[in-house]
Amino acid sequence: MDARADVLLEGRWQPSRDGVGEFRPTDPATGEALAPAFPVSGAGDAQAALAAACAVADELAAADPQRIAAFLDGYAQAIEDDAAELVALAHRETALPVEPRLAQVELPRTTGQLRQAARAAREYAWTEPTIDTVAGLRSHLAPLNKPVLVFGPNNFPFAFNAVAGSDFASAIAARNPVIAKLHPSHAATGRRLAQLAHRALLDAGLPAASVQALYQLRHTEGLRLAGDPRMGAIAFTGGRGTGLALKAAADAAGVPSYLELSSLNPVFLFEGALRARGAALAQEFVGSCTLGVGQFCTNPGLLVVPRGAAGDAFVAAAAERMAAAPGGAVFSQGVRDHYLSALAQWRSLGASALAGDAPADGPGYRVRPALFCIDAAQFLTKPGLQTEAFGPASLIVRTADVAEAVAVIGALDGQLTGTLYADAEDRAARDAVAAALRPKVGRLIGGRMPTGVAVSAAMNHGGPYPSTGHPGFTAVGLPAAIRRFAALHCYDHIDDGHLPVELRDRGPAGMMRKIDGHWTASAVGESA
Amino acid sequence: MDARADVLLEGRWQPSRDGVGEFRPTDPATGEALAPAFPVSGAGDAQAALAAACAVADELAAADPQRIAAFLDGYAQAIEDDAAELVALAHRETALPVEPRLAQVELPRTTGQLRQAARAAREYAWTEPTIDTVAGLRSHLAPLNKPVLVFGPNNFPFAFNAVAGSDFASAIAARNPVIAKLHPSHAATGRRLAQLAHRALLDAGLPAASVQALYQLRHTEGLRLAGDPRMGAIAFTGGRGTGLALKAAADAAGVPSYLELSSLNPVFLFEGALRARGAALAQEFVGSCTLGVGQFCTNPGLLVVPRGAAGDAFVAAAAERMAAAPGGAVFSQGVRDHYLSALAQWRSLGASALAGDAPADGPGYRVRPALFCIDAAQFLTKPGLQTEAFGPASLIVRTADVAEAVAVIGALDGQLTGTLYADAEDRAARDAVAAALRPKVGRLIGGRMPTGVAVSAAMNHGGPYPSTGHPGFTAVGLPAAIRRFAALHCYDHIDDGHLPVELRDRGPAGMMRKIDGHWTASAVGESA
Repeated sequence: MDARADVLLEGRWQPSRDGVGEFRPTDPATGEALAPAFPVSGAGDAQAALAAACAVADELAAADPQRIAAFLDGYAQAIEDDAAELVALAHRETALPVEPRLAQVELPRTTGQLRQAARAAREYAWTEPTIDTVAGLRSHLAPLNKPVLVFGPNNFPFAFNAVAGSDFASAIAARNPVIAKLHPSHAATGRRLAQLAHRALLDAGLPAASVQALYQLRHTEGLRLAGDPRMGAIAFTGGRGTGLALKAAADAAGVPSYLELSSLNPVFLFEGALRARGAALAQEFVGSCTLGVGQFCTNPGLLVVPRGAAGDAFVAAAAERMAAAPGGAVFSQGVRDHYLSALAQWRSLGASALAGDAPADGPGYRVRPALFCIDAAQFLTKPGLQTEAFGPASLIVRTADVAEAVAVIGALDGQLTGTLYADAEDRAARDAVAAALRPKVGRLIGGRMPTGVAVSAAMNHGGPYPSTGHPGFTAVGLPAAIRRFAALHCYDHIDDGHLPVELRDRGPAGMMRKIDGHWTASAVGESA
Repeated sequence: MDARADVLLEGRWQPSRDGVGEFRPTDPATGEALAPAFPVSGAGDAQAALAAACAVADELAAADPQRIAAFLDGYAQAIEDDAAELVALAHRETALPVEPRLAQVELPRTTGQLRQAARAAREYAWTEPTIDTVAGLRSHLAPLNKPVLVFGPNNFPFAFNAVAGSDFASAIAARNPVIAKLHPSHAATGRRLAQLAHRALLDAGLPAASVQALYQLRHTEGLRLAGDPRMGAIAFTGGRGTGLALKAAADAAGVPSYLELSSLNPVFLFEGALRARGAALAQEFVGSCTLGVGQFCTNPGLLVVPRGAAGDAFVAAAAERMAAAPGGAVFSQGVRDHYLSALAQWRSLGASALAGDAPADGPGYRVRPALFCIDAAQFLTKPGLQTEAFGPASLIVRTADVAEAVAVIGALDGQLTGTLYADAEDRAARDAVAAALRPKVGRLIGGRMPTGVAVSAAMNHGGPYPSTGHPGFTAVGLPAAIRRFAALHCYDHIDDGHLPVELRDRGPAGMMRKIDGHWTASAVGESA
């Protein structure tokens, strides 16, 4: 029997101070429990983490951004140096394929994101300096001087990991300490990342308690941390129920929360596009829906397809491909149970199964890709059909005309994405649907499936409630994602020597700032 | 008996559909009720307003920003043309002096703000266009396509009026319909502004229900509106209790809320500055504290003064000036009751009255300026001393040393402003206090009293909870204040012809956009 894993608490690896329980991640492909055991943290760990993070918050906020950047860059390098081991651990805990997903896609995305955050920190790119020389006012975005509590999801062991992903990198770039609540389903991967982060932190000379990591938190303790007035912000990616409970706790204490909850990511296929390339679209859709065993926030979970021959042909082709698509193991027993229960709910509400209406064979947490179908008129009367089946499943809604497609949009909750597949001849229908869809989604996509989320300054991985908790922010894409963890600070007639670097007469070299209404890289008082 | 005033509902002036009550504003200088009577709105008006605003939200969101700007400019002009009547009404309802406050300061500030909002709308200055040509992504801030519910405060009949102030101008600039909940204490002023707004709206050819106005809302109906998922956002300026109740309702429905609640605006006076010009500082402080009968969000409500001779002399001079300062009428019976009750609480918690410890004589809602004093050691044990006395009152906290001043800061709630009066010799103490104070306040002020709030792009009229509801946003200063009422919209491989103007290859002439990581006014594909 291995020893129980230590937690990263108060700047060092130490045994959990709580005796509230332990767990073992499992191999989703076999269902076998893996070693070692990990502790479930209770009030002892949670409160110690909060106190330690608060104790270093001011020092971290005042740290030289070069040091922050050195940490993020050093951490990215350490992840690359350790890639083989990390990928092997993550593969074992998630059953995601080593190639290309973990080694070629997700790990490089993660290190690239950390390096983008390093650059944003170094260049003050998130701080939006604004100077009014006439009024004597200067303002910028600044650290919260408080900890950020990050809850990582199950579906990205690296790129959204609470101790390595976008929320982590964003909070650190804004010079806030992070308390990472790792996801228990890939606890060993999270632990190894935290070890690399911890070493890189010490190498960079930052306070050791700037990064802390717990594997699992008792529910009540998570809520208590989220609702503690000493907390600066919380970031959460995961299921709607847990996310909204955390939001309620945070809201009550005035703690801003940034939540990525759930989304059906509706895809609208128009007549002309279906006639021209229905079979290709069916292939594209099935590829997107089954990628990563469907475990993406932006999985295409709802297809809106017009009635008629072209739509029928697409649906038949999609059903055939879905039935033939290989199943796969989802991350945990819990994910499988939720998936099957969502499909059962769709069925009970009148949706017809076109594929995947049988349990999967084999060991572990295997599921089959599933495709269901229902008429729009029925969909509109059954809000329960908007239950997300997190996994390789999609519900096709058949519409009689554009008005019905628009009515479906009217009934939808806020979504991360919405996609349009339209040809030139679809223009009128496409425009009507796009106008209705635009305010319901964070990202409007033309002619491609939603599963790709580029790390770009122009990305919005966000959307109207309840896909996220706030329509104005993105969880992916720098420097915008960093601004979630910032406070607006104004200086009113404060001497140049007492100003932060970005607000001094002579700012960081080459930095664009808004001075007296104009963007300029010049110093205050110099002509551009 | 005059007829009861109509409400501005569904694009026209009409009688309230509710019979839940009526009220009359009073003249604070005399306590006399003014004509006409105004209706208290219940569910009938509230739900009609919400439905009407939702019905025009998409049309307004799609409106040409030139038209939005024409409305805001036309409205500003109409206010100027009607200035004499507006000022007379506001004077009668608030007892604020016509000259200079209402006519020379607040009215021009209000029209200037509307014109700044017009310019921001016309120039898309709030939209932050970001283009990534490699990833095919373009994003910007866009209208919410939902109504904004604005609650105006009692203390600015023009500049923060729900139908004319910063929240109003910001929400309209972002092309969202506004439901204005006017402040009942100056209902006739609000009605006249709403009449001007309504006419300017029709002249500009915008949907008539884009601006609606109710005088008073039954408490339960206000909460119901704030917590309706059809609401895009709420903006509130006022007391903490009401604001937090609205926040809780909005939070539960995922509606973003922007609240300006209350603030003590601590002012730190250092030894050197006190020795050099203590008498002048006492004069400056009393002027700021009694301006507008102390009814400012940024009134200096807490002074931190070191023990010793220089501090004693300042306190004595301030007490003498406060005792001699003329009292004045506050806005309402309610304001006076709260003021007196806060002073009674300070007294009961051990603070000594240095001035103003007697009821005011004369008619109406008169109060005396009040100055109280307590030792830091006692202040630290009595959180109740942080109760805001909204009016011309301040509490002096005497500190033994810098450590005690820092401890006082540690005990303070989040604040809108914090002020430092320090000379060169105070450097060490000033820096220690500034470091502690910075994260507790939205605006750090050097050597001047906090009551001035310039309308500037570099202003932050915001601060950490509970001074406001979110540390990242300002209620004053454009274009930043507009961004509160925006959603982040991303376009992923959408054709140029289907993009919003700001995101097309060729954007608005001269507009600075972030394209592939660089700020440029050039079109996509053109070199800068």
